Amino acid sequence: MAASEYSLRRALVEKQSSIESQGNAVRALKASNAVKADVDEAIEKLNALKLEKSSIEKQLQAAVSGNPDGSVNKEAFRQAVVNTLERRLFFIPSFKIYRGVAGLYDYGPPGCAVKSNVLAFWRQHFVLEENMLEVDCPCVTPEVVLKASGHVDKFTDLMVKDEKTGTCYRADHLLKDFCNEKIQKDLSISAEKAAELKHVLAVLDDLSAEELGAKIKEYGITAPDTKNPLSDPYPFNLMFQTSIGPSGLSPGYMRPETAQGIFVNFKDLYYYNGNKLPFAAAQIGQAFRNEISPRQGLLRVREFTLAEIEHFVDPEDKSHPKYSEVADLEFLMFPREQQVSGQSAKKIRLGEAVSKGIVNNETLGYFIGRVYLFLTCLGIDKDRLRFRQHLANEMAHYAADCWDAEIESSYGWIECVGIADRSAYDLRAHTDKSGVPLVAHEKFSEPKEVEKLVIAPVKKELGLSFKGNQKKVVEALEAMNEKEALDMKSSLETKGEVEFYVCTLGENVTIKKSMVSISKEKKKEHQRTFTPSVIEPSFGIGRIIYCLYEHSFYMRSSKAGDEQQNVFRFPPLVAPIKCTVFPLVQNQQYEDVAKIISKSLTAAGISHKIDITGTSIGKRYARTDELGVPFAITVDSTSSVTIRERDSKDQIRVNVEEAASVVKSVTDGHTTWADAWANFPHHASGSVED
Amino acid sequence: MAASEYSLRRALVEKQSSIESQGNAVRALKASNAVKADVDEAIEKLNALKLEKSSIEKQLQAAVSGNPDGSVNKEAFRQAVVNTLERRLFFIPSFKIYRGVAGLYDYGPPGCAVKSNVLAFWRQHFVLEENMLEVDCPCVTPEVVLKASGHVDKFTDLMVKDEKTGTCYRADHLLKDFCNEKIQKDLSISAEKAAELKHVLAVLDDLSAEELGAKIKEYGITAPDTKNPLSDPYPFNLMFQTSIGPSGLSPGYMRPETAQGIFVNFKDLYYYNGNKLPFAAAQIGQAFRNEISPRQGLLRVREFTLAEIEHFVDPEDKSHPKYSEVADLEFLMFPREQQVSGQSAKKIRLGEAVSKGIVNNETLGYFIGRVYLFLTCLGIDKDRLRFRQHLANEMAHYAADCWDAEIESSYGWIECVGIADRSAYDLRAHTDKSGVPLVAHEKFSEPKEVEKLVIAPVKKELGLSFKGNQKKVVEALEAMNEKEALDMKSSLETKGEVEFYVCTLGENVTIKKSMVSISKEKKKEHQRTFTPSVIEPSFGIGRIIYCLYEHSFYMRSSKAGDEQQNVFRFPPLVAPIKCTVFPLVQNQQYEDVAKIISKSLTAAGISHKIDITGTSIGKRYARTDELGVPFAITVDSTSSVTIRERDSKDQIRVNVEEAASVVKSVTDGHTTWADAWANFPHHASGSVED
Repeated sequence: MAASEYSLRRALVEKQSSIESQGNAVRALKASNAVKADVDEAIEKLNALKLEKSSIEKQLQAAVSGNPDGSVNKEAFRQAVVNTLERRLFFIPSFKIYRGVAGLYDYGPPGCAVKSNVLAFWRQHFVLEENMLEVDCPCVTPEVVLKASGHVDKFTDLMVKDEKTGTCYRADHLLKDFCNEKIQKDLSISAEKAAELKHVLAVLDDLSAEELGAKIKEYGITAPDTKNPLSDPYPFNLMFQTSIGPSGLSPGYMRPETAQGIFVNFKDLYYYNGNKLPFAAAQIGQAFRNEISPRQGLLRVREFTLAEIEHFVDPEDKSHPKYSEVADLEFLMFPREQQVSGQSAKKIRLGEAVSKGIVNNETLGYFIGRVYLFLTCLGIDKDRLRFRQHLANEMAHYAADCWDAEIESSYGWIECVGIADRSAYDLRAHTDKSGVPLVAHEKFSEPKEVEKLVIAPVKKELGLSFKGNQKKVVEALEAMNEKEALDMKSSLETKGEVEFYVCTLGENVTIKKSMVSISKEKKKEHQRTFTPSVIEPSFGIGRIIYCLYEHSFYMRSSKAGDEQQNVFRFPPLVAPIKCTVFPLVQNQQYEDVAKIISKSLTAAGISHKIDITGTSIGKRYARTDELGVPFAITVDSTSSVTIRERDSKDQIRVNVEEAASVVKSVTDGHTTWADAWANFPHHASGSVED
Repeated sequence: MAASEYSLRRALVEKQSSIESQGNAVRALKASNAVKADVDEAIEKLNALKLEKSSIEKQLQAAVSGNPDGSVNKEAFRQAVVNTLERRLFFIPSFKIYRGVAGLYDYGPPGCAVKSNVLAFWRQHFVLEENMLEVDCPCVTPEVVLKASGHVDKFTDLMVKDEKTGTCYRADHLLKDFCNEKIQKDLSISAEKAAELKHVLAVLDDLSAEELGAKIKEYGITAPDTKNPLSDPYPFNLMFQTSIGPSGLSPGYMRPETAQGIFVNFKDLYYYNGNKLPFAAAQIGQAFRNEISPRQGLLRVREFTLAEIEHFVDPEDKSHPKYSEVADLEFLMFPREQQVSGQSAKKIRLGEAVSKGIVNNETLGYFIGRVYLFLTCLGIDKDRLRFRQHLANEMAHYAADCWDAEIESSYGWIECVGIADRSAYDLRAHTDKSGVPLVAHEKFSEPKEVEKLVIAPVKKELGLSFKGNQKKVVEALEAMNEKEALDMKSSLETKGEVEFYVCTLGENVTIKKSMVSISKEKKKEHQRTFTPSVIEPSFGIGRIIYCLYEHSFYMRSSKAGDEQQNVFRFPPLVAPIKCTVFPLVQNQQYEDVAKIISKSLTAAGISHKIDITGTSIGKRYARTDELGVPFAITVDSTSSVTIRERDSKDQIRVNVEEAASVVKSVTDGHTTWADAWANFPHHASGSVED
């Protein structure tokens, strides 16, 4: 808890007690028929204390919400954005006429255009630029694949049920809501209680089903809608289950991520790449998670588009040839150490983070840099973008390092891209389950002499001693690392036997010298065989797009000052429509010119729209600003037209024949609006905007 | 049955009987100890007859397979294409390391690139060109939506089970296989039997479960793998079922088509379009069909990409403003009449087909023309593309007209695009189920006086007579068309009562004059409210791509003539990689030049690959031809390079600085290879190709 919050809570408790005693004082004076002036004075003092208390409450509210104005503005802002998005069909709650389904949204026409622009840029920026091998695998996935990946057993959230109605809730959400509610709204709680609740929030993700259940009981949390008692928490698998084929005997799931489709193809892709490392494969596609009770609107949905990269690399050489191209980038990073010590994210040069070992390796660093460039090119505000390193307890045990690109939105900092060094975990899991070795080879230029540890359990002896447990003991012996094996070897040589813990049995067994031979042998090897490490940047496309909406949205007064107009400041790269064409007034000549310009825009591949309604030009500009259209061509003569830029509202005058090529050049990024502004006569907008 | 086939069968029967009598003659001669010369002569005659029989069999085989060389070459050709596709990772059987899942395929790197090129061109050709409203809806769909569309009840195939093993088969496939097998391979069957089997094949799609079951019994068809008896046919729903949310109470399905997502959004899209008709919405996305036992490789799969257009139009005005742009196209059409009368598809001018009423309306004709342009631009051979009209029994009862773009492949003519006028069916179905009117309005410039039929059942009277059936009688009365109602009115006026058939009761009831009032009233109307018709072009992207592979594939001899090389003649538009860059020999200087060219190609957005292996240039060309790469730049000096075109193998010489822009200009279609050939010096390939 921040110092200011602590002292505010103390001040509040003191103020409350002053108010109570002053209240008693007033009552006492009244009861004793004191003179009116004295009573009035005491009442005045009481009112002053109440005012002071209310001021402290406001400060406390601001302190806990982390926002100087409290959290009210954030929600009002979000509402304004979401209203605009929904009204202009950027998105539509799916199956709306049937009252919709929680967590499912359609992209309407402008949203769909933004999405395809983002995906096209992703392909250009990653797949084409890095010569990645793009694949496209089905969503329907047989159980065996997701069993190997661990999803069948572990891809769960803890759920509680309303014991009377059966309504389901996420257990951690209920506890989180309870804690936040208490901290933010119940100002009577003590500083100690607040600290405890904050601690619960901090460790929420690490709580077991039993611990969560205990907290829910302790705090007396009930079903939010009915206040009924809740069941104990139990795991619910988040995959949509189905059945493949007509027999009903082949369970399948809708994939929860696209990555597994790449891993199972590793062997073919490695061959396709000429049996050379490193290489990357990529996939864009739908993924599905049957969320228990989706909240946070467009940020937590049941079906979404992922774009994933699996970069396969020799674990002994994680350098990257193009690393120097991003090493000088500097942006907000939030390493583990800063998080633990309560500091905030700070600007670090990427090269420094890698050389100091904050980022585990060059390839991971390279992708962090490329993701930064990708997001900022789309229009994400670099000051509301940070790369946060996973804490040790957040990271899977096999991961070498993991960073999330987090974007700040009205919901807080949102994980939009995960960039993880997953080591050899996934390929090994599929090797084990399928029996097909997913490995790479490094041919030596000349054979190398290597010393290899050889552990040879003597199965007959082990069988005699351990009977049915023999297999588990053998496996445990074979799984020893070099140090363990050499320790055992020397113990056996000195003592003849040794205690050995077999974790699959959960107990110690006695290993005798006759049961295992451990030696180091020299061998000539012509190649090295290894499981590649994989570095995985994984993009939640829908989340990126939603944050982009928030970062691009602003309001400005109409020229007359009588209303607030909404604008999305999308860069041309992502704008759903690049240009609108308006005949200034309804008139055949102007409409003909508009059609000529429209044809040249189509030929140039510039998406655009003609608006021939008779509405005032100002209203038409406002409409187009709300869709984030960067340029508007207004036809006000048959020889030349004006081009207006959305954010500056500046206008230039160009010949009809040039209009399409000027817009194309600026939207393609070959020139800028500043160039156009310098090269063409300016047009005073006069009174047309309103 | 074609005339030639009939006479061949007769000839075969006669020849067989001649062989039998001649055999008897030989045996009789031998038995009677005739002179050797006579016996030899008789044997010679017998052998000649056998030879003649074998020749007739070959002709018959060719006649029934519809291929002058029999069906062998088709399969060999297909095998060559599929081998190349699989070896070069155009596609990969999904989850191969786990032995795969029937009907699921991955697109590997070149296949994925072809797919995204096809989809990008689809967006350009349809969405951008026509200003369509593109949307993107989830695959997970709640039951109510697919109940309304009819999929829950009717999207089934008839299935039979092996009664011992439980293996499932499509009933119609088994019957079809049996008939084809008999007709093609069992040459002993009579012409009458062959005609019967052909009739079964012709009516296969119309057979009920009972009829199919009867045929299977009659022909003694058993399970193909075990010869076990089969169950009776029963319907199996082809949708993948799942459950939405954790309660298990909300059934959902993976959508079997993308169209429903558009229909349920009609109201919002109509509003987005300024409440104006016509307009089109479009969607690209995955669709799912849990096929009983998928066959035909890449053509019948369980998950596939659809691209669908729903063009909404006033049913009273199906003209199209851009129709004249396609009216002069001439291509193979196969109208209903030609099919029924046993003729074949013929070239018809589209404008003629529409004006003669062969194609129902201009908008349908416009899309047929646009689809023709789309497919031929991709590289589909126009002589193996036909537009086939649905026969009356193929078409849904509500459809006004329906044409399939069929592409000829080694599997025969394959439906790749369906273009249907579905009338108002879908919007009405969702209006009924959701209660939200999915309608359009036409405002009259001045109010119109209309005469309207008013049917007013007198519910009280009806209730007294029909009790619990009252509702059904009321509905039947209200559903009468104008003629029926006026007939009833006059009968009631003359006779006082009338017999009336209520189909939901399945019986006649007696309606008395007091039970219903029928009148025509004059009303002033300010607008017309109607359910729009929808014209739906629906593209099976995977099928189009597979046919494109077959149409693009050819083999040619290597220069040395010692081997056959595979080539895909993809146009640059769809080629997975536009260009390869080869340093002629391994050498730092050439590799540096190759890198410079690669950078300019990346900047120009041209997908390409550098190949710096030391393999002979001929082998490298062959490798790139097999991927369908149209251009190869070979670096054989530091100042200029050669560019080779794939199909002609012609080479030109250009300066290093120009190389990227020459390739870009030809691949973008701004110039042609012929232009480049005319403008640059030619390079004699010499002996480098091998």
